[in-house]
Amino acid sequence: MRGAVIYGPGDVRVENLDDAMIVKPTDAVIRLAATCVCGSDLWDWRGINHVDQPTPMGHEYAGVVEAVGGDVENVKVGDFVIGSFFASDNTCPICQAGYQSSCVHREFVGGAQAGLLRVPLADGTLVATPGMPEPDLIPSLLAASDVLGTGWFGAVAAEVGPGKTVAVVGDGAVGLLAVLAAKQLGADRIIAMSRHASRQELAREFGATDIVEERGDAGVAKIMELTDGLGAHSVIEAVGTQESMMQAIHSTRAGGHVGFVGVSHDVEIPGEELFFSAVHLHGGPAPVRRFLPELIDLIWSRQIDPGKVFDLTLPLDDAAEGYKAMDERRAIKVLLQP
Amino acid sequence: MRGAVIYGPGDVRVENLDDAMIVKPTDAVIRLAATCVCGSDLWDWRGINHVDQPTPMGHEYAGVVEAVGGDVENVKVGDFVIGSFFASDNTCPICQAGYQSSCVHREFVGGAQAGLLRVPLADGTLVATPGMPEPDLIPSLLAASDVLGTGWFGAVAAEVGPGKTVAVVGDGAVGLLAVLAAKQLGADRIIAMSRHASRQELAREFGATDIVEERGDAGVAKIMELTDGLGAHSVIEAVGTQESMMQAIHSTRAGGHVGFVGVSHDVEIPGEELFFSAVHLHGGPAPVRRFLPELIDLIWSRQIDPGKVFDLTLPLDDAAEGYKAMDERRAIKVLLQP
Repeated sequence: MRGAVIYGPGDVRVENLDDAMIVKPTDAVIRLAATCVCGSDLWDWRGINHVDQPTPMGHEYAGVVEAVGGDVENVKVGDFVIGSFFASDNTCPICQAGYQSSCVHREFVGGAQAGLLRVPLADGTLVATPGMPEPDLIPSLLAASDVLGTGWFGAVAAEVGPGKTVAVVGDGAVGLLAVLAAKQLGADRIIAMSRHASRQELAREFGATDIVEERGDAGVAKIMELTDGLGAHSVIEAVGTQESMMQAIHSTRAGGHVGFVGVSHDVEIPGEELFFSAVHLHGGPAPVRRFLPELIDLIWSRQIDPGKVFDLTLPLDDAAEGYKAMDERRAIKVLLQP
Repeated sequence: MRGAVIYGPGDVRVENLDDAMIVKPTDAVIRLAATCVCGSDLWDWRGINHVDQPTPMGHEYAGVVEAVGGDVENVKVGDFVIGSFFASDNTCPICQAGYQSSCVHREFVGGAQAGLLRVPLADGTLVATPGMPEPDLIPSLLAASDVLGTGWFGAVAAEVGPGKTVAVVGDGAVGLLAVLAAKQLGADRIIAMSRHASRQELAREFGATDIVEERGDAGVAKIMELTDGLGAHSVIEAVGTQESMMQAIHSTRAGGHVGFVGVSHDVEIPGEELFFSAVHLHGGPAPVRRFLPELIDLIWSRQIDPGKVFDLTLPLDDAAEGYKAMDERRAIKVLLQP
């Protein structure tokens, strides 16, 4: 099979790799209908995460089950399935509490930018669609695998709901889909923080009622202006830097909720400031599995169209160009066709 | 009136001060039935908080209304009342959401280690008891003013409830009363972290089912051992140091809740660690006002006896000895009689 491998900063190559295979009886192998490049892949591409050795890339996937191990019961060959970047047993107390991305048996699912993918703990990880999807639904189903599930978790973690004013820090695919999630979850007002015209447009399409272009303290001041000086009830942090985290905390009213889903890099939260802010803070690797049945249903019934975040489609063999386009912010998110 | 004034580290003097008076029509003046020394007062005593100028001390109070301003409607002269360290209007959107300690009009109530105290925003701040309390109830009613309300908020912030295993980091008055709160809120199992025999005993009396003497990483390991390797559902942090905060975060299972009520000093929370812990984090200055009616009711009906945290009673004139006894951990909490 063909698959993308990173060798170092700015060096992603698509190569001939051994076909993914069943290793354990709880595995499934799926043939990818589509895969994509994640904002978090860019940490490796940029050299911020150190790459020790050539590493297969990609952790977002949707496709057809090609083979299952002897213990797999919940999915069968021929099913169209979606799963998350962390495989989970979905039965341990942590999974049962809805935190499948912290499952006691979790395994990272890597190497999804390829033709085939081995998924561990298939029974707990994969969710099948009601049937074979129309081709135009595939981008949205793929989005559910990570960016939609992550944006959705950010909104849930920020306790978005009716009567609330929501602010979203970050206009990448996750931030934009957090806007979509906030809309679905019934928020009254959704403020997207973005200074890119095309992203602002998509944010509005997904449900943003206000756009704030300012960042940092100026961005916070603008949110205060829009909320009678109190701050938003719910703020979703979808970047992962010190500036974005503090912007999120400072934009939230006392007693409000920050949901943070940007993978934190070199972030230190000052305890005293957090204390006196009196906000709630919750985040982490999104337990996408918790939300997959609901998200698949919303996509299947065409109530949401999260696939719109893919504004560039490339053949898998051009993966490196996909990374480059996202790194340079020429593309919001790149879909790769195996 | 007599009142305690801090001049610098280790230097608290009780002096003749001008009587507290009505300044604004929304004020009340109360004659203190009792007052006390708070763990947070020790930050000043120890020189960790810098004291710029001689400052009247004390922010915990219960007593009889002596005078009210022209706009005060909810309490009258002769009422026995309790209030919190932050005066609040109890009507702004932040108060209405239950965060009175972040009220948009909040004022710190200082100078309570005295015979008389001016309380701003009396209508929103003070809660009257059903009648004049029996003398033996006064320590408990005084505890409601801060340490009980703060321990209670810690438990609520940590989402303590039936079916949950709770750990409490810190065995000061707030930590011990967080144990009491956890018991009242229906926790299944309450682990108190303490290495002092007399505090362990009180923790057990308040409802602790387990005691852990280890601290830091060893304390975390012990909590893991007691919770099938998962961590507690709810952890209350009642110290305010880097070690106690990290101990609390690391002792909490993924998806669980940390309630932090120790005033953070030099605490920096590493973002990446918080991210991958997947815990909820909430704390701050306790909105004691939210809980006062319920707490007064529990005390009045003698269902709880939080006054037991006072293990040393001194005349107000001996306030300095009270600070010293708490600083040296000879006393859990010192009651001062004006």
